[in-house]
Amino acid sequence: MSKTIELAQHLEKLHINSMYKNDFYWTWDKTDEELDAIFTVADALRDLRERNKSTRVFDSGLGISIFRDNSTRTRFSFASACNLLGLQVQDLDEKKSQIAHGETVRETANMVSFMADVIGIRDDMFIGEGHKYQKTFMDAVKEGYQDGILEQQPTLVNLQCDVDHPTQCMADMLHIIHQFGGVENLKGKKIAMTWAYSPSYGKPLSVPQGVIGLMTRFGMDVVLAHPEGYDVMPEVEDIARKNAAATGGSYKKVATMEEAFQDADIVYPKSWAPFAAMEQRTKLYQAGDQAGIDALEQQLLAQNAQHKDWTCSEEMMKKTRGGKALYLHCLPADITGVSCKEGEVDASVFDRYLVPLYKQASFKPYIIAAMIMMSKVKDPVSALMALDQGGPRKIF
Amino acid sequence: MSKTIELAQHLEKLHINSMYKNDFYWTWDKTDEELDAIFTVADALRDLRERNKSTRVFDSGLGISIFRDNSTRTRFSFASACNLLGLQVQDLDEKKSQIAHGETVRETANMVSFMADVIGIRDDMFIGEGHKYQKTFMDAVKEGYQDGILEQQPTLVNLQCDVDHPTQCMADMLHIIHQFGGVENLKGKKIAMTWAYSPSYGKPLSVPQGVIGLMTRFGMDVVLAHPEGYDVMPEVEDIARKNAAATGGSYKKVATMEEAFQDADIVYPKSWAPFAAMEQRTKLYQAGDQAGIDALEQQLLAQNAQHKDWTCSEEMMKKTRGGKALYLHCLPADITGVSCKEGEVDASVFDRYLVPLYKQASFKPYIIAAMIMMSKVKDPVSALMALDQGGPRKIF
Amino acid sequence: MSKTIELAQHLEKLHINSMYKNDFYWTWDKTDEELDAIFTVADALRDLRERNKSTRVFDSGLGISIFRDNSTRTRFSFASACNLLGLQVQDLDEKKSQIAHGETVRETANMVSFMADVIGIRDDMFIGEGHKYQKTFMDAVKEGYQDGILEQQPTLVNLQCDVDHPTQCMADMLHIIHQFGGVENLKGKKIAMTWAYSPSYGKPLSVPQGVIGLMTRFGMDVVLAHPEGYDVMPEVEDIARKNAAATGGSYKKVATMEEAFQDADIVYPKSWAPFAAMEQRTKLYQAGDQAGIDALEQQLLAQNAQHKDWTCSEEMMKKTRGGKALYLHCLPADITGVSCKEGEVDASVFDRYLVPLYKQASFKPYIIAAMIMMSKVKDPVSALMALDQGGPRKIF
Repeated sequence: MSKTIELAQHLEKLHINSMYKNDFYWTWDKTDEELDAIFTVADALRDLRERNKSTRVFDSGLGISIFRDNSTRTRFSFASACNLLGLQVQDLDEKKSQIAHGETVRETANMVSFMADVIGIRDDMFIGEGHKYQKTFMDAVKEGYQDGILEQQPTLVNLQCDVDHPTQCMADMLHIIHQFGGVENLKGKKIAMTWAYSPSYGKPLSVPQGVIGLMTRFGMDVVLAHPEGYDVMPEVEDIARKNAAATGGSYKKVATMEEAFQDADIVYPKSWAPFAAMEQRTKLYQAGDQAGIDALEQQLLAQNAQHKDWTCSEEMMKKTRGGKALYLHCLPADITGVSCKEGEVDASVFDRYLVPLYKQASFKPYIIAAMIMMSKVKDPVSALMALDQGGPRKIF
Repeated sequence: MSKTIELAQHLEKLHINSMYKNDFYWTWDKTDEELDAIFTVADALRDLRERNKSTRVFDSGLGISIFRDNSTRTRFSFASACNLLGLQVQDLDEKKSQIAHGETVRETANMVSFMADVIGIRDDMFIGEGHKYQKTFMDAVKEGYQDGILEQQPTLVNLQCDVDHPTQCMADMLHIIHQFGGVENLKGKKIAMTWAYSPSYGKPLSVPQGVIGLMTRFGMDVVLAHPEGYDVMPEVEDIARKNAAATGGSYKKVATMEEAFQDADIVYPKSWAPFAAMEQRTKLYQAGDQAGIDALEQQLLAQNAQHKDWTCSEEMMKKTRGGKALYLHCLPADITGVSCKEGEVDASVFDRYLVPLYKQASFKPYIIAAMIMMSKVKDPVSALMALDQGGPRKIF
Repeated sequence: MSKTIELAQHLEKLHINSMYKNDFYWTWDKTDEELDAIFTVADALRDLRERNKSTRVFDSGLGISIFRDNSTRTRFSFASACNLLGLQVQDLDEKKSQIAHGETVRETANMVSFMADVIGIRDDMFIGEGHKYQKTFMDAVKEGYQDGILEQQPTLVNLQCDVDHPTQCMADMLHIIHQFGGVENLKGKKIAMTWAYSPSYGKPLSVPQGVIGLMTRFGMDVVLAHPEGYDVMPEVEDIARKNAAATGGSYKKVATMEEAFQDADIVYPKSWAPFAAMEQRTKLYQAGDQAGIDALEQQLLAQNAQHKDWTCSEEMMKKTRGGKALYLHCLPADITGVSCKEGEVDASVFDRYLVPLYKQASFKPYIIAAMIMMSKVKDPVSALMALDQGGPRKIF
């Protein structure tokens, strides 16, 4: 029996009926079984690919991608995922600096969604705006479908918003599951999501938020650490606490990187911007106050520079369990002495984890494909079984 | 019997032999039955899509799109149409300001057309140039095919030129047909194509020209209205008059928006530039006279501003038949108090017609797909029947 | 028996086992039989296309294209080739001026290669860098595959580097073979690869190098001519000499265009930059010395201008065999009186050869497709035979 068949049989036992025709905004909108379904389908699609089986679910169709920020990696991941399932990608270039308003979004949403099967949106620049844009967009296409404008209802894959980065964090999680030999081995494992110094400013909060919102659901001890003033959204911390309470894990905030790294099994040191500053920046952009934006940038860079000791050095890694914690990063990292003078991580640490880091990234296209598949295919169990028995991807 | 089979049976009765392997420049190049064929195939493709049937006509192949002006909507419509039929799209980015000359066009045409099945060109910026560019391009690929350079002859879909905008106007017309419950209900209906104020300048004339050139063929009373100096191309008005004479409808020009709207069943208020000014602009661009271009822009904006009363207000709409004329726009519209201070239409009017406006737009991808299909498929009747009996678009 | 079957039978006799899963950097890496295989498969794919047969080798899959220089033509050729075989194209936009370093290339290579089947790279700007970039990139994906990051190993098609331009020169060669009625008719034919004046500077050396590195393998008398100071890479000249010695042809350098053209059967007059100047330019770019780059440009333009007599005039063409040598160019050409005041070729010469020039270009997509096919399909003989018996490309 192939791995895909095993995975399909597992999928059959899960309660996943509400995923069909539904959007993927945040991991905490989804039940544990629904997340399990995404991991299961992602693994099955990878198994099919490795065995050179066709994974076409569509004979034709469109995936629309909207990136309100530059993104080579996520763009390629989305394109790969669409291609894997038989969809073509059409990019919509939105101006980066433009915060679109209700009516315009509604019109654009309808105009680009004719014949679209799935919409991938990345909008992480502005706190309080990214998710709102995605919601306005998807409400518009839902209405468009109900009004007979669109002949089918496309579904959303959130490719990063101001709140969550579900395709990244689900890929991170699937990587952890594989590295630790199964989700059952994660109970009691300590994961440190920590801030790290970077000489650039304004990095999104969606990764740390996504991580504490997701990883608290697997019985792990999740620790968040950051310098004073680098808080994440309190709503997401509430979710993390509730998750931990429900799954027998824990969620804790500590004040130093050292404490977070102590005996950690997994570390995720990464820079992000202070939530309050990002809120302020959104207002400055809305007011078109360029002088204010520039001043804020200088202030934030200076604030960052006070915390250069928050770096994933060899010394810091020694504090982790056996000095061998799994090092995670969403890439690209700011590597000390390589991409910058002082950064998030020592070059020797980064280099040692190169292969697992690339593997971590390699799950993202499969996670995206699994999200698309679960939202578009009514009976994914039968679909996987049919693909397993079906033709090859390389016809010759 | 499915709607598609009914439509295929209707298609069978039409004389459409000269569409195969032929280009689509202007609606007035085509016979009534040929236009009927486009509408019929567009409706059939939409029916197949709604029933989740595969509409692949090509196993592989390329649609080349050339936009000599920015265009999100038409770009997406062309991409959707190509995808619907199984073609991939490859964009050629031509510099906007560059008016290419004969030899260069000929070389480019051959170089980008290897393996191309269909070419979509939008070139509406310069009066006297847009159609010429398309013609030069297509003559070159025809020659290239005859000389054995290209192994097949790609066909053209005019995505907007300086003279006509056939994919827009055909979509508008199909929308009207559906709204009025069939082409047989259009006899004697009054449609008002009127200029409207916009605070931007230099909007193409191809929509009003396309509308009077097409809508005069269905027995309707077509009225064109614009302020003095905003004439459209006289050649197209001649076509409108001949059409009207041949179909028992009428074509009339009136001097005020009020008169045009009076008892109208359909209104299409939209800004455009004066023909003479556009001719002048082409010459200024050819001479590279930037100062002249800037001066002309100021002059045209001032000229526009004298006609702010040409706006589709609630008062104006009350003059139409029962105050309930079908409001059309090719989008995006300049909406008073929304996208500009004073514009083409009142926000309350625009909002009331949002659903029909989006529906109007939704026909464009199907019209384009129908144009491609009629030019590439020798026996479209059998093709539609086979698709109706064929496999699903979503394989699972 | 179809032409494709004949070609497949010829292919069967060739020793081509090492092409499967292998990259295509330079023609001189490949055996004569391997080059023969590329020509054979290119001809077969064209025959299949002309007969409207499906040439899909992939049910789904990605071709990644990386252009570190603008390129409409090669971009379209790669896209056409991928589409022909059933692959979608995803472009990676690398900044033109940026010379990426080892680690960054390694990360990018892995990040964009998830699910990729083939990588096409054009990097011809910097002597000493283009090939290095391609090699670093492909070494990274090979490692990525071995480390389990990539679930398959994509192969390279060199779309032009600083050393060779194999897709261009192979297309040129296939054109010559067809024009002369078979490779067996080329023995003793004289081909003149000569420099020609152009008012632009810094044109890559990869075409002349690729030509002398390839065309010396078919028993032809290959002559290279250029003004003093416009030498090509000595390593490639060594290859040309060795090739000639092995195949009974000859390789000779002469000092004037006249001598090169004398009794030539084929002429390829084309501008390129001096090798030494290009080495200097690379260093200036690496040092970020913009003033130095500008000074070098002026110096090179002045140097070029001393050799305006190196032009493919009617007079020059008269010196060729019967005045009727086959004129080649990789396009676009600098045509005297058309695209520039004085350039590489007289307008009347260029115009006379327009059809063969476009035909020459038309082989490139097929050469690229053949390269992809030979590297991805284990049994290309059976594949061609199956395609010959298979379904049509236009399903209806």
